[in-house]
Amino acid sequence: MTIAFDAPFEIDTRPAILDQFVTDETGRPGSRPRGVAYAAGLDEVLAVVGWARETRTPLIARGAGTSLEGHVLARGDELILDLSQADSILHLSAADFTATVQPGVTRTRLNAAAAEIGMQFTVDPGADASLGGMAATNASGTTSVRYGGMRTNVVALQAVFADGRAMRIGRAVRKSSSGYDLKDLLIGSAGTLAIITELTVRLHPIPEYLRSLRISFPTVRSAVAAAVDMLGLALPVSRLEFADAASMAAVNGFRGTGYPEAPALFIDLEAASDAAAASDEREIQRICLACGATEIDLARTHTERHALWEDRHRLFFALKARSPGHRFLVTDTAVPYSHIADAVDTATRLGAELGLDISAAGHIGDGNVHVVVPYTDESLPAAQRFSHAMVQHALDVGGTATGEHGIGLAKKQYLRAEHGDAVDVMAAIKRALDPYGLLNPGKILDP
Amino acid sequence: MTIAFDAPFEIDTRPAILDQFVTDETGRPGSRPRGVAYAAGLDEVLAVVGWARETRTPLIARGAGTSLEGHVLARGDELILDLSQADSILHLSAADFTATVQPGVTRTRLNAAAAEIGMQFTVDPGADASLGGMAATNASGTTSVRYGGMRTNVVALQAVFADGRAMRIGRAVRKSSSGYDLKDLLIGSAGTLAIITELTVRLHPIPEYLRSLRISFPTVRSAVAAAVDMLGLALPVSRLEFADAASMAAVNGFRGTGYPEAPALFIDLEAASDAAAASDEREIQRICLACGATEIDLARTHTERHALWEDRHRLFFALKARSPGHRFLVTDTAVPYSHIADAVDTATRLGAELGLDISAAGHIGDGNVHVVVPYTDESLPAAQRFSHAMVQHALDVGGTATGEHGIGLAKKQYLRAEHGDAVDVMAAIKRALDPYGLLNPGKILDP
Repeated sequence: MTIAFDAPFEIDTRPAILDQFVTDETGRPGSRPRGVAYAAGLDEVLAVVGWARETRTPLIARGAGTSLEGHVLARGDELILDLSQADSILHLSAADFTATVQPGVTRTRLNAAAAEIGMQFTVDPGADASLGGMAATNASGTTSVRYGGMRTNVVALQAVFADGRAMRIGRAVRKSSSGYDLKDLLIGSAGTLAIITELTVRLHPIPEYLRSLRISFPTVRSAVAAAVDMLGLALPVSRLEFADAASMAAVNGFRGTGYPEAPALFIDLEAASDAAAASDEREIQRICLACGATEIDLARTHTERHALWEDRHRLFFALKARSPGHRFLVTDTAVPYSHIADAVDTATRLGAELGLDISAAGHIGDGNVHVVVPYTDESLPAAQRFSHAMVQHALDVGGTATGEHGIGLAKKQYLRAEHGDAVDVMAAIKRALDPYGLLNPGKILDP
Repeated sequence: MTIAFDAPFEIDTRPAILDQFVTDETGRPGSRPRGVAYAAGLDEVLAVVGWARETRTPLIARGAGTSLEGHVLARGDELILDLSQADSILHLSAADFTATVQPGVTRTRLNAAAAEIGMQFTVDPGADASLGGMAATNASGTTSVRYGGMRTNVVALQAVFADGRAMRIGRAVRKSSSGYDLKDLLIGSAGTLAIITELTVRLHPIPEYLRSLRISFPTVRSAVAAAVDMLGLALPVSRLEFADAASMAAVNGFRGTGYPEAPALFIDLEAASDAAAASDEREIQRICLACGATEIDLARTHTERHALWEDRHRLFFALKARSPGHRFLVTDTAVPYSHIADAVDTATRLGAELGLDISAAGHIGDGNVHVVVPYTDESLPAAQRFSHAMVQHALDVGGTATGEHGIGLAKKQYLRAEHGDAVDVMAAIKRALDPYGLLNPGKILDP
């Protein structure tokens, strides 16, 4: 470990180490950062922020590095504050349905600990992200249709602000109307307003009765109609995932399955009794058949359920295997329910026009369908045109450029198109809380 | 209507009119405001805010005036901006599960309109509040255990800021990770950061199958244990209300019912099929009996359900009838589940010590039990000591001074005890967005 600068803590500046921080999961490289400091707890974060404030050194807080939008990439001479070693689970309470953790704890580790008291942490973005990073990007995922994303599931924070003070943000209760909602302001702010040093999150009981279904449909529109009908009858679905025909073909190719290569829904339903689960499962089948479903696969045992969801969870690997030698761009728009089918149709049409072998899959209950776009150096401009057109479609129909990945660096160009003058309000808040622009400068907002 | 000042809109300054704005539902009077301006839409709000900015006139936006914490009371020479005539329902979408309304629309009017498309707006604070006011105070109520409060149910806003600009805040999608969460910052800010001129809210399907139960318990602790067990099994309860023995006695006295005068739960459960409802109802009975329940009353028909909930909804009238000639203070603390029974025991003990005829009832699934304290001029100091001790108990166990009523004027003294230095962050945001302190000055924060 090299001690560089005149800092009261260690900063690693070895090139081989710094090179590990040049990328995240976006695939595009940032700059080599100025150095890396590691913090395992509040005192160390306070020391780093205090020094950064004195020396006017910009900081990028980093957890597991699984951002898909460049949130933790350096643009110049930032110091990386690596929080992956701040990974203690501080408290689990079955009585209060809460867990308090340090920001470097990953969601799978928290879930393993929660399972021992019969509980689960429900936000599942796919990657084994750190909880601090998930809060910083307002992550969500397959279960958000029932349990919400990070804003719903984080009840209180501790954070260090640019003025060097650590503060408790919010209280670990189910609801409060006391003061301004700083907790939700920090969630999704990508470390640009404060550095999260502790989180208290909601745990949920592990459901007693679960059923899973995979259902094939003749068209995208009929699959969407069935999904919206289930929501319209308030059926207790905890996952409601869409996969298009290209996705299902990739699964068959990768997993050796023989599924219809047609639009499909993957569904989990949860119930408090077996009778309720059976009744709800019948209701889902009725809705799907009324919408024209061509095949319904029921998974009732743990083994059957696991196999069904493995196929869905490994979809991205299946798509990668189908396009060897490619890199992958993943869109993240979310639109109102009435525009989901249009969004998928638009993607299919644009893919054909631009010669891209795209596929669409995602969280239909949130209006958040991801399109996976394989590209090479040659087809990068076409992939970028595709991404831009999808964002434009979403914004045109009242949607958002990013349902769950965040703005980071990659979606900054759309911030004003989506929010108009409200960007000025965001910038005023940034200036008020971080006047020297020390915290993750240039992310979300221009510096 | 008197035109006063040199304003490009009408300002009513007739004393008899101004006197109508001296109180809200707190029972304690504010000052007589400087005047009242009425706005039926955005253009009029822009005119008033523009003039207020030029003339440095403080403004208090007001909806239905049902605040319980003094949010809309004048302290000096503020101008009231009455939005109760901005009461158009602009759009209802069954396809997108949303409604867009002006801020003066009340929740019962929205619900009547939503019912025509088979939907409901689920936030129910009791009073027929305006949706703008409910957003400004982050209201919630009996159904929040399942559907959440205003932060969960408002998806987008239009608001006018102190700089005179109208902005769109958020997009009407189920989720977004784009930019800072200004929507949730404005919700609960009591008109101190911006004036809400339009809201898009979530609608939910009206459940097909509903069952209601009233269950008596030997002790507060056994009732709380049963409630937490239901949540621990993820039973689909949409209302989970507690009433103590004194509350049940008041209901008997007022409604002529013969209920056990013992702690009780009032429960709604919702299901997507009759079989699921029956199964969940059996599970609730099993839990309650295991916790020692002494009487279970099932309401299955609409008439039975209506009668059961009328008893709960009229509880405040029953308590008023029991203490004629009194005024009433209502506490609003929320605590972690593991401290609910302690909070009720503390209230009972304090009531006896201070000679107050208190009763406790409320939203046990949110840890938010209200204590109703009848008082006279003579016993006002005792009632205030009671309220203070309940807030102190909540803060001591990690809870909040206000679960759903807000800070307003009445709970300002507890803001720093609850939030510590984070109050400085709130004040920095207030200064950044309203540097002249024109928007509801002195509410939540000191001016």
